[in-house]
Amino acid sequence: MRLVALAGGTGAAKLLRGLVRVAEPSRLTIVVNTGDDATVWGLAVSPDLDTVCYALADLLDRERGWGRRGDSFQTRDAMARFGEPTWFNLGDLDLATHLHRTGLLRRGRTLAEATAAIAGALGVVPRVLPMSDAPVRTRLLGPEGWLDFQEYFVRERARVPVRAVRYEGAGAAAPAPGVLEAIGEAEAVIVCPSNPVTSIGPILAVPGVLAGLGATPAPAIAVSPIVGDAAVSGPAGALMAATGLPVSAAGVARAYAPWLDTLMVDEADAGRRSEVEAEGARCVTSRTIMTGPEEEVALARAVLGALA
Amino acid sequence: MRLVALAGGTGAAKLLRGLVRVAEPSRLTIVVNTGDDATVWGLAVSPDLDTVCYALADLLDRERGWGRRGDSFQTRDAMARFGEPTWFNLGDLDLATHLHRTGLLRRGRTLAEATAAIAGALGVVPRVLPMSDAPVRTRLLGPEGWLDFQEYFVRERARVPVRAVRYEGAGAAAPAPGVLEAIGEAEAVIVCPSNPVTSIGPILAVPGVLAGLGATPAPAIAVSPIVGDAAVSGPAGALMAATGLPVSAAGVARAYAPWLDTLMVDEADAGRRSEVEAEGARCVTSRTIMTGPEEEVALARAVLGALA
Repeated sequence: MRLVALAGGTGAAKLLRGLVRVAEPSRLTIVVNTGDDATVWGLAVSPDLDTVCYALADLLDRERGWGRRGDSFQTRDAMARFGEPTWFNLGDLDLATHLHRTGLLRRGRTLAEATAAIAGALGVVPRVLPMSDAPVRTRLLGPEGWLDFQEYFVRERARVPVRAVRYEGAGAAAPAPGVLEAIGEAEAVIVCPSNPVTSIGPILAVPGVLAGLGATPAPAIAVSPIVGDAAVSGPAGALMAATGLPVSAAGVARAYAPWLDTLMVDEADAGRRSEVEAEGARCVTSRTIMTGPEEEVALARAVLGALA
Repeated sequence: MRLVALAGGTGAAKLLRGLVRVAEPSRLTIVVNTGDDATVWGLAVSPDLDTVCYALADLLDRERGWGRRGDSFQTRDAMARFGEPTWFNLGDLDLATHLHRTGLLRRGRTLAEATAAIAGALGVVPRVLPMSDAPVRTRLLGPEGWLDFQEYFVRERARVPVRAVRYEGAGAAAPAPGVLEAIGEAEAVIVCPSNPVTSIGPILAVPGVLAGLGATPAPAIAVSPIVGDAAVSGPAGALMAATGLPVSAAGVARAYAPWLDTLMVDEADAGRRSEVEAEGARCVTSRTIMTGPEEEVALARAVLGALA
């Protein structure tokens, strides 16, 4: 089955790691959010692309959910002495990826080409595509003005209230080569349990993506990153509230209407079926909390089962 | 006493470390070779500037003679997987210096300004100046064509025969701000025991430097990096031979004629005094091999003594 997955970072990485164990990895295309890309120390950092690639190459630090396992922070510590910002926490192993990507971009390669080179070098089999080669920056309106996503999420630890979200540059961005083709040819679309506002939202904001999702006859299924009234991890709840979405599985269904066919919610939310279905999506339940490889595989299998 | 030192890397670092213990560091200006600067992974690397700064900040790895003590090589090892060249051996701590310098240059700072920022952040008291803000690249003609200095020295381990040396860009380079002024105001000029061809030669090739050295009434003393018929370390011997200089203390004196007043040779070369003096320099002897802090201080004291 030809699959397309829409992915952010940590939550997506878990489901994708399960998916490549139960589906054919070479027939999977992963379209990844680049709205939280950043320039750190002059280097092009693509956190979600790297989290997905590291996860599929079994290099991801599972405990942190980001960065490379066994990484060290010598360069970061030495940067502090020069007064350089260190809050972004680039590890020494991770740094190689950013140096390599930055070099490829400087030599005129696109982000999609750079991503293919990195994924290939790491032995990643699925096709990993940035949502766009053009820069799109998710920005959040906090009490003191607009913040980049990484400033909000890492530097401010998602503790400041957010009043609005925008995807800067999205209107002028084109989908990366292959994105619309993959959606058009997919036999199913899987929306990973990622933040609907800052992980999947930017992908949907790239012109053509929503139309492609609306036009494909392939079923689209999402796994809810919200259980009960809160996100499994990260600031999805606060950001959904900031954009006027209910912080619930129903809110996730609303974020993906009208093109979403099925929302998989946690079995703890079985009682919310009618709420979800009122948003126009079929509701299925599963255990959705992934605490290890078995849960990742089980959830991936449940997703494929719900598609069958 | 206002001092100017002309410096390359390892040998210079040792003498300078001694010098700041026996002379007033704030009255010392160090003019450093940038002919072996390189671009590594897209970063601006200035090996001699860094060796001098690290040495004076007590951060230099004394055993290797380059790089930072206690450094690790995680990024380098991760770069290998991406097919990036790793022969240059940039350490993780060292990398911070190159990232910081590259960022400063990208934002329009000159190399001299970037060097001042780095030296200041590391707590280096003497004034450290690059010989020029403009790129000068020492290139060596090997059997298969022209090599950059680092390709010759690090990648090829100085094992290929060299037939010619040139300082690319030197003719169009101006001395960095402060270089000629420091030479003009110096009460003594000290040429560190560095490679006359690839460490001191590039400095002398920058227009105006030779004239400044010729014009100053201040005495100029050099410490010979050659003992007997061989260099204390590194490829100075082979490169002197390649440029037609005798591989001996006399060859060093010839490289610095006619502006050099005194050459300090190792006591093992006491018998070569007349040979050196035939090149036009006074010859003094000392122990010149520096194997530790005491020898560094002793040699620095001997140099100041010879100037007195």
